[in-house]
Amino acid sequence: MEEWNQSANLALDIGGTLIKMVYFSSTDNCSADSQENRSLEESNDISDDLEICLIGKGRLHFVKFETTNINDCLDFISSNQLSTHGDLPDEKQHSAGDRNLIKATGGGAFKFADLFMERLGLNLDKVDEMDCLVAGANFLLKAINQEAFTYMNGHKKYLQIDHNDMYPYLLVNIGSGVSMIKVEGDEKFERVSGTSVGGGTFWGLGKLLTNCKSFDELLKLSQEGNNRVIDMLVGDIYGGLDYSKIGLSSTTIASSFGKAISENKELEDYRPEDVARSLLRMISNNIGQISYLNALRFGLKRIFFGGFFIRGHEFTMDTISVAVDFWSKGEAKAMFLRHEGFLGALGAYTSYQKKNSGELISHQLIEQLPNGVQCTGDDQCRGLPADPKS
Amino acid sequence: MEEWNQSANLALDIGGTLIKMVYFSSTDNCSADSQENRSLEESNDISDDLEICLIGKGRLHFVKFETTNINDCLDFISSNQLSTHGDLPDEKQHSAGDRNLIKATGGGAFKFADLFMERLGLNLDKVDEMDCLVAGANFLLKAINQEAFTYMNGHKKYLQIDHNDMYPYLLVNIGSGVSMIKVEGDEKFERVSGTSVGGGTFWGLGKLLTNCKSFDELLKLSQEGNNRVIDMLVGDIYGGLDYSKIGLSSTTIASSFGKAISENKELEDYRPEDVARSLLRMISNNIGQISYLNALRFGLKRIFFGGFFIRGHEFTMDTISVAVDFWSKGEAKAMFLRHEGFLGALGAYTSYQKKNSGELISHQLIEQLPNGVQCTGDDQCRGLPADPKS
Repeated sequence: MEEWNQSANLALDIGGTLIKMVYFSSTDNCSADSQENRSLEESNDISDDLEICLIGKGRLHFVKFETTNINDCLDFISSNQLSTHGDLPDEKQHSAGDRNLIKATGGGAFKFADLFMERLGLNLDKVDEMDCLVAGANFLLKAINQEAFTYMNGHKKYLQIDHNDMYPYLLVNIGSGVSMIKVEGDEKFERVSGTSVGGGTFWGLGKLLTNCKSFDELLKLSQEGNNRVIDMLVGDIYGGLDYSKIGLSSTTIASSFGKAISENKELEDYRPEDVARSLLRMISNNIGQISYLNALRFGLKRIFFGGFFIRGHEFTMDTISVAVDFWSKGEAKAMFLRHEGFLGALGAYTSYQKKNSGELISHQLIEQLPNGVQCTGDDQCRGLPADPKS
Repeated sequence: MEEWNQSANLALDIGGTLIKMVYFSSTDNCSADSQENRSLEESNDISDDLEICLIGKGRLHFVKFETTNINDCLDFISSNQLSTHGDLPDEKQHSAGDRNLIKATGGGAFKFADLFMERLGLNLDKVDEMDCLVAGANFLLKAINQEAFTYMNGHKKYLQIDHNDMYPYLLVNIGSGVSMIKVEGDEKFERVSGTSVGGGTFWGLGKLLTNCKSFDELLKLSQEGNNRVIDMLVGDIYGGLDYSKIGLSSTTIASSFGKAISENKELEDYRPEDVARSLLRMISNNIGQISYLNALRFGLKRIFFGGFFIRGHEFTMDTISVAVDFWSKGEAKAMFLRHEGFLGALGAYTSYQKKNSGELISHQLIEQLPNGVQCTGDDQCRGLPADPKS
C-alpha cells in the first residue's frame, strides 16, 4: 500500500454540485489483469471504465464526490495519502516545494482553499476553469482513441478525429450550469455563451418534484417515464393534427409541462417517472438548441458536449442530438466525450506539465478500454475488428 | 341591449391555455364617459384598459377565457349574441351567408370546430396562427399610438414607431409555447424558431411546485419572492467571489434551482414565493436569450415580445430586457406591446378585411387610453404633456 501511495498524484475540479478528481498511480501499470491496489476502487464513485494508462508509467483514475460531502473527498485524499508524496509521470517537474501543492479548478478551488489547508495542509494551486475545460477536451481528443462519438436513435458511433482538422469546435460543458466555449486552437478559445438551465436545474427541480435522493436515481426514473402525460404537444392544441405549414408535427412538444395546467391534478397525481422524463427532455432540448444557435453564430459545425450532466445517459444524448439535428436541419452534429465529466479535472492535471498537455502526454498513452482492448493515443485500437489503418 | 348585440362582431384565438377574443360594438361610440352597455364588462376577463375605439364606428373589446373552461366562452358569445347578427365597421364585407362564420385562429380553431357548430351553429373560419400574429402585431404598431414600449429598471418608455422604418423585426410570441417570427414586411415573414419553455411551462411547473390556482396568482407570488434562496449563484460556487475573467459577477445565476440540490430540504421547506420567482426568472431569461440569438442570426435589432405570458408584469419584462441587453452587450432592445396577449385575435379580426389590416383600419382609429387621453393612430396623443410634435 505504501508504495502505491507514494506514486500517486492528483488534480481536482470542484464544482457547485460535484468534485471531480483525477489521480495517478505509477505502480498500477496497466497490465490488463492487474488487480493490485484495487481496494480503493471499491467505492462507487470510482469509474473503472474510464481509467487511462500511461505507457510504462502507470494509470490515471477518475473519482467523483458530491460537493456537499466534501469531507469524503478530504478523507479520501488523506487516508490514501494521495498528494503527500506526490510524484508525476514526468518526475522532473515536481520540486520539493511543490509537494503540498494541488492543481485545482472550479469555483470550489477558491471557496474551499482554506479548508484544504486546515484539514490537510494542502495548498490549492488554482487553475482557471475555462482553461482547464479546453485543455481537458483537447487532451482527450488528441490523446485518447475512441473518445468522441455521436449518438442517434440508439446508435453510438465512434469518431476518428483528425488532429490536423480538429478546430474550430464548440465545447458545451454541462455542469450545474452550462458554459459554451468556442475553441479555435490549443490555447485559443473564448467562452461565448452559457445558460443557467443545466444539470443543477435538472437535479434541483427534479428533487423538488419527485422523491429522488440522487441525480442518478432521477436519471433512472426518467428512463421509465412518458413525457407526453405532462408536456403539451402540438397535437394537444390542434386536436390531434400537425401544424404542418410551419413544419411542426402533432407530436412536437409545444409547451414543456404545459399539460399540468389544464387538468385538475396536483403534483402527487403524476408519476415521478413522467415528471423526470419531461424535465430531462426540456433541459436537454434547451441546451441543444442554445448550443446550436451559438455554433451557427460562429460557423462551427462540430459541437462537443461534456460535463457530468450527461453521464452517458442514452435518452439525454439522444435528445441533445435530435435538438441539434432539428434546429440545424442536419447541418450540425452533436458529439459526446467518453470522459465527459472530467474535462476540467483532466485539464487541471495536465497543467502540471509546462508544455501543451495533449502533445506531451499523448505519446505516453495507452488506454485500457472496458473490454480489455489496448489502445494507444495515436494508433487504432489493437484487437478491434480489422481496420484499413491498423 | 338588442341594438348593442346587433352591432357586435368577434374573432377568436384559441390557444392551448387561453382563448383570446376581440369583439366589436358599434353603439359603444368612444365618448370618454360612455358607460352604456357596460354590463358585459363586469367580468374579470374583460380588459377595459385595452379597448380600441374606431372613430365614428364603435369600439373593440378584449376578453380572455381559459381553454379548459371553453363553455364560458361559448356562453358569453351565446348570451350576448355576439355573432348572430354580426356587423363589421366596414359594412359591405359581410354577406348574409357569412353571418354564422367566425374568424378563428390557434390550434383550438381546429380542435373545437365541431363544438362551436354543435353548441352555437357557428362555423369557425380558420386563419393561420402565424399570419394572425404578424397581422396583429403590424396592425398595432401602425395603428395604435403608444403601443410599443421598452421596460428597464422599473422605467417604461413608449416608443414612436416610424411606419416607414418598422421592418425588419423579430416577433416573439410567448403563449403556452413560444414562436419566433422574422417579420420583414406586411405579409413577408417566416417562423424561424421557437421554444417549448414558455408560459405553459411557467404555469404548469408553477402549479406543480406551489399551491397556486391561477397563472395570475403565481405571477403575484413571484413578485414577493427571492430567487437567490433556490438558484445557485456564481458566488455560491466561487465562495462569494466574482468569476471576473469571463465577466460573471458573483450574483449571476449559475444554475437555476441549483441550490435545491445541496441542501437537505424538500419542496415544502421552500417558500412558494421564492420558487415562483426562480421559475419566472429562469423562463424569462431563457426566452430572452434564445430570442436574442435568433435576432442576431438575422441581423434584427428590434425584438417585440407579445403573448399572454407577460401580462404587463414588471419583473417579467425587466428580466427579458436584461437578458436581451446582457447577451447582446447592449446592441439589441427588447420591446413590449400593450395589447401583447391579443396579437392573434386581432390578426384574425383584421382578416375579415380583404385589404391590409393596418393600412385599412389605422385611418379610422381613435384609441381610448386608460387615463382618458384620446389618441389617433397617426398623431401624437392629445392632452399629453407638451411635445414638440403635438
